[in-house]
Amino acid sequence: MAELLARTVARIGAPDAGAMTDAVALQARLTKPPGSLGELEELGVRLAGLAGVCPPPLPGPAAVAVFAGDHGVYATGVTPWPQEVTAQMVANFLGGGAVVNAFAREAGATVTVVDVGVANPIPGTVSAPEFVSARVRAGTRNLAVEPALTRDEVTAAVEIGIRVAEEQISAGAGVLVGGDMGIANTTVAAALVAAFTGSHASRVTGRGTGIDDEMYARKMGVIADALALHAPDPGDPLGVLAAVGGLEHAALCGYQLGGAAHRVPVILDGVIACSAALATVALAPDALGALVAGHRSVEPGATVALEHLGLRPLLDLGLRLGEGTGALLAVPVVRAAARVLREVSTFDAAGVSSK
Amino acid sequence: MAELLARTVARIGAPDAGAMTDAVALQARLTKPPGSLGELEELGVRLAGLAGVCPPPLPGPAAVAVFAGDHGVYATGVTPWPQEVTAQMVANFLGGGAVVNAFAREAGATVTVVDVGVANPIPGTVSAPEFVSARVRAGTRNLAVEPALTRDEVTAAVEIGIRVAEEQISAGAGVLVGGDMGIANTTVAAALVAAFTGSHASRVTGRGTGIDDEMYARKMGVIADALALHAPDPGDPLGVLAAVGGLEHAALCGYQLGGAAHRVPVILDGVIACSAALATVALAPDALGALVAGHRSVEPGATVALEHLGLRPLLDLGLRLGEGTGALLAVPVVRAAARVLREVSTFDAAGVSSK
Repeated sequence: MAELLARTVARIGAPDAGAMTDAVALQARLTKPPGSLGELEELGVRLAGLAGVCPPPLPGPAAVAVFAGDHGVYATGVTPWPQEVTAQMVANFLGGGAVVNAFAREAGATVTVVDVGVANPIPGTVSAPEFVSARVRAGTRNLAVEPALTRDEVTAAVEIGIRVAEEQISAGAGVLVGGDMGIANTTVAAALVAAFTGSHASRVTGRGTGIDDEMYARKMGVIADALALHAPDPGDPLGVLAAVGGLEHAALCGYQLGGAAHRVPVILDGVIACSAALATVALAPDALGALVAGHRSVEPGATVALEHLGLRPLLDLGLRLGEGTGALLAVPVVRAAARVLREVSTFDAAGVSSK
Repeated sequence: MAELLARTVARIGAPDAGAMTDAVALQARLTKPPGSLGELEELGVRLAGLAGVCPPPLPGPAAVAVFAGDHGVYATGVTPWPQEVTAQMVANFLGGGAVVNAFAREAGATVTVVDVGVANPIPGTVSAPEFVSARVRAGTRNLAVEPALTRDEVTAAVEIGIRVAEEQISAGAGVLVGGDMGIANTTVAAALVAAFTGSHASRVTGRGTGIDDEMYARKMGVIADALALHAPDPGDPLGVLAAVGGLEHAALCGYQLGGAAHRVPVILDGVIACSAALATVALAPDALGALVAGHRSVEPGATVALEHLGLRPLLDLGLRLGEGTGALLAVPVVRAAARVLREVSTFDAAGVSSK
């Protein structure tokens, strides 16, 4: 394991039990019926545990990082979209015209775009300050016939993710949102979820951006065959990422580790981020304390991954876009959960009678 | 029907079918897989229909109005909370210490507090500019033994709600959030939902702020008996509000009508707002086009009401607080749905290949 990765994993600590106990007690004294804020109460307690203090700080503004990469498994015909769309969408992100940009404006979040492994040249100008050119290789190898990545390539991508998280946190980000772009990357995510959870391909394969029955059957077969070919060991998360992973998946894993190491919450988006989170928690179990499930993607692998992690998604709006879009919609919910503990009066202080 | 109410109902028009057709077509050309934004796509189409133009405008800042009232049915023992809590919580809202205040700060929303029927004096200073003192009467009569309100009292409360909506819209509000405060008001809401939907008391009665089995059985019995006593006619919505309603429920109905008349979206909160929406749509069926279901309350009557209206809630976080809290969390989702149609590039404009 390379030095930055090892140092980051070593830095990740457990949630602070004392702060969580204090938060549970405080929730009961606030001017609302006990339990009436449902999942926001537990979320507030988790934020206190992560911050190590009750009430937790109000998280600073959110920062999005969209990691883009291409996939050798594209060649097996698992998506109807041309591979060039990955590079074209990177240009669209930089131009501010994608859904992630629109949702980031609503959330007051910055958007950094990271080319960690796109196959084609990015069209147009790519000197924007919010662009990080860090291509580990121009797309992965075809996991249907050989390991997608070497272990060194995985580590390089993970460390890129760590560095992006650290730069955003240094710049003041209080919530991290990891997004993805990569044609064929739901195939990779499904393989990762199957490998880490022991689920059959039929349970984790989804229709991604929208595929017909024939292509769906092919996609599921590719995933099942790849698992049989590589027999990835879930106890060796970097090995799993090398065998059936993607560069954006590995970078998202690093990004999540980076947030956890600095005790900054990371909101998970769809199946790509959720599959990466399985690697994250396999590398550093305490990183779970920093992860918040932003929404329930339509992709079945996302739900399998979240159940494995024991996380309940905040939103369930039928989204299946990626880019970080669903996680961005959850940013105000996360901040609201912190505000409850910080800003709501107690019964005593407000002169409100209890029942 | 009084003049302001009649004029408001007459002004409420149907959604603009042309704008909705344009919005459906535009969704398909934006740089995202078709359908990948799930419920946000339909929401965007509804916003276009309400605004009468595609893309719809980005809604201006949200405004909350919390309508507070007390209930004669309190005397039957349907809640463990003292009635004085209604007045105390009004003071808490004005002091900025309630959950609705914390969530409004997150959403950048103003909070207006309207005393439309509190039984007790409001403690402390009540000269705040965000306070509207418009008490129709100091709590309703006991619906277990007589009609809760006269028809004139209902109309007065409805017109207060209309005026508050109009003032907020004049001041620049682009999204309305109607909240409530009133000890025992979930009993009233359940009775309204039962009356408007024909549901049995057992289907709509919930545990409100948290009651034990004995009190729950009493509450359900009170609701069932009141429906038998008054036999309210759902074709006469003002009559239903008079028989088994509350002043905050009536005011919320007016508030929703006011938003609809000005084609401003109104986000529904929990069971109180949802029960009021049944009256709203009974008075003006086209008002439905302005109503957005913010979240799914734990209260079963809220789900029954939303199903009756054909509205799907955006969030489902296990909330049961009221005050407008759940609706406030949905404000960014509503604005994000408008941003998609306004801000996302088309495949052609962004130079992104289609599948």
